[in-house]
Amino acid sequence: MKVITSAANPLIKDIKALAQKKYRDAQQRFYAEGLQVLGMAADCGWVPELVLASEEGAKHKVAKAVLATVPADSQYLVTQQLLSRVSARDNAAPVLAVYKPRWLKLESLKPTKGDIWVVLEGIKDPGNLGTIIRTADASGAKGVILVDDTCDPYSVEAVRASMGSIFGIQLMQTKGAAFRDWLQKQKIQAIGTALQTDRDYRKVKYQTPVLLMMGNEQSGLSTAMREACTDLVKLPMRGTAESLNLAVCTGIMLYELNKLLD
Amino acid sequence: MKVITSAANPLIKDIKALAQKKYRDAQQRFYAEGLQVLGMAADCGWVPELVLASEEGAKHKVAKAVLATVPADSQYLVTQQLLSRVSARDNAAPVLAVYKPRWLKLESLKPTKGDIWVVLEGIKDPGNLGTIIRTADASGAKGVILVDDTCDPYSVEAVRASMGSIFGIQLMQTKGAAFRDWLQKQKIQAIGTALQTDRDYRKVKYQTPVLLMMGNEQSGLSTAMREACTDLVKLPMRGTAESLNLAVCTGIMLYELNKLLD
Repeated sequence: MKVITSAANPLIKDIKALAQKKYRDAQQRFYAEGLQVLGMAADCGWVPELVLASEEGAKHKVAKAVLATVPADSQYLVTQQLLSRVSARDNAAPVLAVYKPRWLKLESLKPTKGDIWVVLEGIKDPGNLGTIIRTADASGAKGVILVDDTCDPYSVEAVRASMGSIFGIQLMQTKGAAFRDWLQKQKIQAIGTALQTDRDYRKVKYQTPVLLMMGNEQSGLSTAMREACTDLVKLPMRGTAESLNLAVCTGIMLYELNKLLD
Repeated sequence: MKVITSAANPLIKDIKALAQKKYRDAQQRFYAEGLQVLGMAADCGWVPELVLASEEGAKHKVAKAVLATVPADSQYLVTQQLLSRVSARDNAAPVLAVYKPRWLKLESLKPTKGDIWVVLEGIKDPGNLGTIIRTADASGAKGVILVDDTCDPYSVEAVRASMGSIFGIQLMQTKGAAFRDWLQKQKIQAIGTALQTDRDYRKVKYQTPVLLMMGNEQSGLSTAMREACTDLVKLPMRGTAESLNLAVCTGIMLYELNKLLD
């Protein structure tokens, strides 16, 4: 392992810069932290470009397994203090790894029986996005399709909220018009949640392959996206609350849909 | 309305201090922001101790209705700049009101048919707590019982995440032993979610009154609390994810239980 001791080292500066989208775009890389998350990445077949580990971190079984997947000159031994400088966490993890984002092409997607996909239009909160990715993974969905200006799933906050599931599902991004062109060619159920319907989500017959379409935190799905849905549904609101948190609502819908997988 | 123009005004300092728990405890007050939230509070019969409004904010219909509920000497006209100094938001709302927390006594609680209550043990994240309060309200639950060291639902972050539902549900707090003593005297179903069971949450017959018991984000329900449950259930985990976000998991369970209200 190479040793870095100075925060002025260009590599450290480059990694720290990945907290900002423009540098993630420029470097085409993102980072993830923590033994559990890096272990999940390895289990899902992701090989990092480089790994930073503290002396203590490098001794851990999971860290050793991850380190073994990269060449020696991509393994860096650093102090916990340096990890703290890079990390966005209050307590930096003892290992951190840098990966290349993976985007699949929507054009090549042909959903088949048993497939559940989440479609997100214009989501703004990276914590919501990461939590939705985590829930999609846990519920057995295949992946998440990001439509139009949705926040970056490879941001530090989204990666952290995904709790490693960013490595477990498939991701695509596309424009609304291109998505709707694609959808028209598929003969599949596309469920949108919307306030503009009175149809209870439990009164609808679902069948896979199915898309669950969720809109922006404030404004919901756009008119064009609602019109592209085969079914619009609504969750009952019984108290004084006017709506649910987006990630909670997506979770309730995903666990309703994953009954189809039983 | 009284006019305040200086950030050094003691009232402004007192309100700003409510962002910290020790000052909320000392003053026995908390604040909430925004026209929609203050409107929900008014709809639920909460009368603020005092209201701050910008000139523009005070013109709004909802603000007028809220202002009308408090004496003239508890109405303060302030600049938007002063609201920004008090607010924890990036964009301060044009109205802000200070309320007295409401805690109900567990001893007096007698759940009856149709009642769903959420019991939270040792929750640490105020965003999770606020989101759970919002979901409990939306799903038709009566309220939330906080057991042992759970974060403060009247914190700025929890109030904000609750989106006004902090005013729509009932809140109690108690120690674990006192809660279990109370529970033993009730003849009601107490559902705990736990990783220590293989029982699918959909395979259980639920009936109201029912308690949904959820544990700490990392460690889940304590052994004592699990043993106090009538049923332990688990949500299926199909992907690489090892768990769900606490607020998402609570939402899925609450919408499973609220079928009982149909």
